[in-house]
Amino acid sequence: MDTLRITDGRVLRPDGTVEDADVLVDRDEGTILDIGSDIDAEASETLDAEGCLVMPGLVNAHCHVSMTLLRGYADDKPLDAWLQEDIWPTEAALTPEDVRVGAELGLVEMIKSGTTGFADMYFHVPEVVAAIEEAGLRARVGHGVVTIGKDEEDAWEDIEESLDVAREFDGAADGRIRTAVMPHSLTTVDEEYLSEATAEAHDEGIPVHYHANETTNEVDPIVEERDERPLAYARDLGMLTDADFIAHGVHVDDEEISLLADAGTGVVHCPASNMKLASGMAPVQDMLDAGVTVGIGTDGAASNNDLDMFDEMRDAAMIGKLAADDASAVAAPDVLDMATAGSADAIGLPGGTLEVGGVADIAVVDFDAPHLTPATNLVSHLVYAARGSDVRHTICDGQVLMRDREVLTLDESAVVDRARSTVDALHERV
Amino acid sequence: MDTLRITDGRVLRPDGTVEDADVLVDRDEGTILDIGSDIDAEASETLDAEGCLVMPGLVNAHCHVSMTLLRGYADDKPLDAWLQEDIWPTEAALTPEDVRVGAELGLVEMIKSGTTGFADMYFHVPEVVAAIEEAGLRARVGHGVVTIGKDEEDAWEDIEESLDVAREFDGAADGRIRTAVMPHSLTTVDEEYLSEATAEAHDEGIPVHYHANETTNEVDPIVEERDERPLAYARDLGMLTDADFIAHGVHVDDEEISLLADAGTGVVHCPASNMKLASGMAPVQDMLDAGVTVGIGTDGAASNNDLDMFDEMRDAAMIGKLAADDASAVAAPDVLDMATAGSADAIGLPGGTLEVGGVADIAVVDFDAPHLTPATNLVSHLVYAARGSDVRHTICDGQVLMRDREVLTLDESAVVDRARSTVDALHERV
Repeated sequence: MDTLRITDGRVLRPDGTVEDADVLVDRDEGTILDIGSDIDAEASETLDAEGCLVMPGLVNAHCHVSMTLLRGYADDKPLDAWLQEDIWPTEAALTPEDVRVGAELGLVEMIKSGTTGFADMYFHVPEVVAAIEEAGLRARVGHGVVTIGKDEEDAWEDIEESLDVAREFDGAADGRIRTAVMPHSLTTVDEEYLSEATAEAHDEGIPVHYHANETTNEVDPIVEERDERPLAYARDLGMLTDADFIAHGVHVDDEEISLLADAGTGVVHCPASNMKLASGMAPVQDMLDAGVTVGIGTDGAASNNDLDMFDEMRDAAMIGKLAADDASAVAAPDVLDMATAGSADAIGLPGGTLEVGGVADIAVVDFDAPHLTPATNLVSHLVYAARGSDVRHTICDGQVLMRDREVLTLDESAVVDRARSTVDALHERV
Repeated sequence: MDTLRITDGRVLRPDGTVEDADVLVDRDEGTILDIGSDIDAEASETLDAEGCLVMPGLVNAHCHVSMTLLRGYADDKPLDAWLQEDIWPTEAALTPEDVRVGAELGLVEMIKSGTTGFADMYFHVPEVVAAIEEAGLRARVGHGVVTIGKDEEDAWEDIEESLDVAREFDGAADGRIRTAVMPHSLTTVDEEYLSEATAEAHDEGIPVHYHANETTNEVDPIVEERDERPLAYARDLGMLTDADFIAHGVHVDDEEISLLADAGTGVVHCPASNMKLASGMAPVQDMLDAGVTVGIGTDGAASNNDLDMFDEMRDAAMIGKLAADDASAVAAPDVLDMATAGSADAIGLPGGTLEVGGVADIAVVDFDAPHLTPATNLVSHLVYAARGSDVRHTICDGQVLMRDREVLTLDESAVVDRARSTVDALHERV
């Protein structure tokens, strides 16, 4: 058997406790064989974890990974103007090859900050899939659809592409890639398309992922036109099942929180993006109290401006307390849970916990650093003080993606160089 | 002349522009001799800055540096309970040597994240001063005073200590250390002591620094008792001059913002602490619009939980937009200005800009990283995407404190080890 042993670390267990233990991984199956201090087995490869915490790989539950190309392109603007004046016109100029380059840049960034799984909504999805296959992460991907402003033929074509992509790539990369149909939002896709796409997707066992209740600009028109809240509208359209998941969920009322909890629909909290675009503060503690499955996502790098889930955990804790007006709300253990098991659960991928028999999606975080000293509370440090750069090794599906900060599956400096020249050419075109 | 040359970098100028240039430093005087692409001088030492941005060292304008020992000690609690149940009882057990160890840990963390100057309020100040002298940073330090719950003799003794410390250490460490008298806040120090300490300090040309308007729990009693806002009370006590500076300023109304602007009193915004303790959102854009001098501080590591000013810049931009309900508020260039020149101005230390003839307090940030690619907007990247770990070299007063991530003035691993054993012993005692 081809095995990997992570030695001499402290292992974070699903109940939040930490124990001195090694982790033994079956690389053929991509699963954890054993966790313990007395494992009696020779391994094909070992990874040193002395002074480190061995934790589940982080799961970035809402992203547009290729938007790394637009990092710093337009800041300090509200969502609508930012999308319409800057982001959408530039995205229209992106070639499939550009999207691949942007995806690779984002994947390197994710690997270097301990993220092993993510959900991605974008276009030119075959390029995104190819990059993920090479990089070695786990993902649920889909083609984002906008129908407003399109004629009927173009709109149906876009819906069909989202369905086709979801069918074609489900199970790609040895099963690491899953798919969803991804209408952009309840306001940017018209009712007939939402309804039809959802029905077709669910008939074929494909989940639906969309932005919902991100800003009041998106909530108010639905309430005015339909005299019901957006998530009641989504439920009526059949878009609120336990396989579906929404991004943002900032402006949700108590009734919508109940709808989410009852349906088992996952919510992906994107605190940095919600702050940077002044969208508002999601009632995360209320959602957790109601039993909603809450994950955490970075959103795209253009509204963040990085893909570091450690930043995102810190942001989630911080804004969660402000939103609840209570410093004890959205506590560190809950945040860590959201960024791992919560995210995995919300987007329907394995991972998010370290358990024998479970997938070997693992981040090894080096705690031998001044800003993580003293080691009074490791979970607190992960949420409030650690950074992506503290990750020493990243493992996904049993494969080592980064060893001692060196990314093994992609050529980091070549990826960075390609991103630079791609963006230079893009700026000349736009 | 003993000189240092920082070569092949891009230099951030005071107007926010970036130019390809070298920086030549006079190490005897600790000042910048020249900035340019055609400097004709041999230097005693060179620092490579290829692929880097050469920027002013960050200035952490409100800190309790030794509180690194309490990092992760008590999280997810509101300010009053956190102070009274956890922080103050533990601090009462700290020995002078403990405070020195905590200061060294915090100073290593600051150097490693590009901070060259700070303001510090704590106790056992001689130990803090000794650590700063060794570490090589620039600081304004003071002894924090609380009088509530003390008898008159103890209260006056504490006030006297704050004055004595301010007199004794002003100008220490070759002038790098300045001082202030530091009553803890307008509610934890009684009126007669505030009035007397301020008068004595100002008579001797010493500024006053205190927490103000941090939570509503601190504002409401003053309004009820005195029928005036806290900063009007502070003005009446003479504590609102252009040399004085307050920490937090979260709950300030328009009249108080005018008072601050008219007086020239600096406000130190502490966004992470204000979020983590659910204290509230400071109206930073309103203060900037009114012409208030605003700096940025991390507060202590126990309410943050790190001393990384890059985190703090990101937090300031994020929460500033939410507070203003406007994504264009507290824009990246303003945030960078607050964390450098604004902080230096607020606390009355030199630095915060790179100018010929100015002090050589410099951070060299490595931009050759995936999360800082593409280099579309360097100022945006500094605020939204960079981390303390991207800092390659740190220089203060012309001396190299960190070269290629190696701290030169303190022994990093010995400092970390001492902090660990100190905290172990502290936990056994408390």
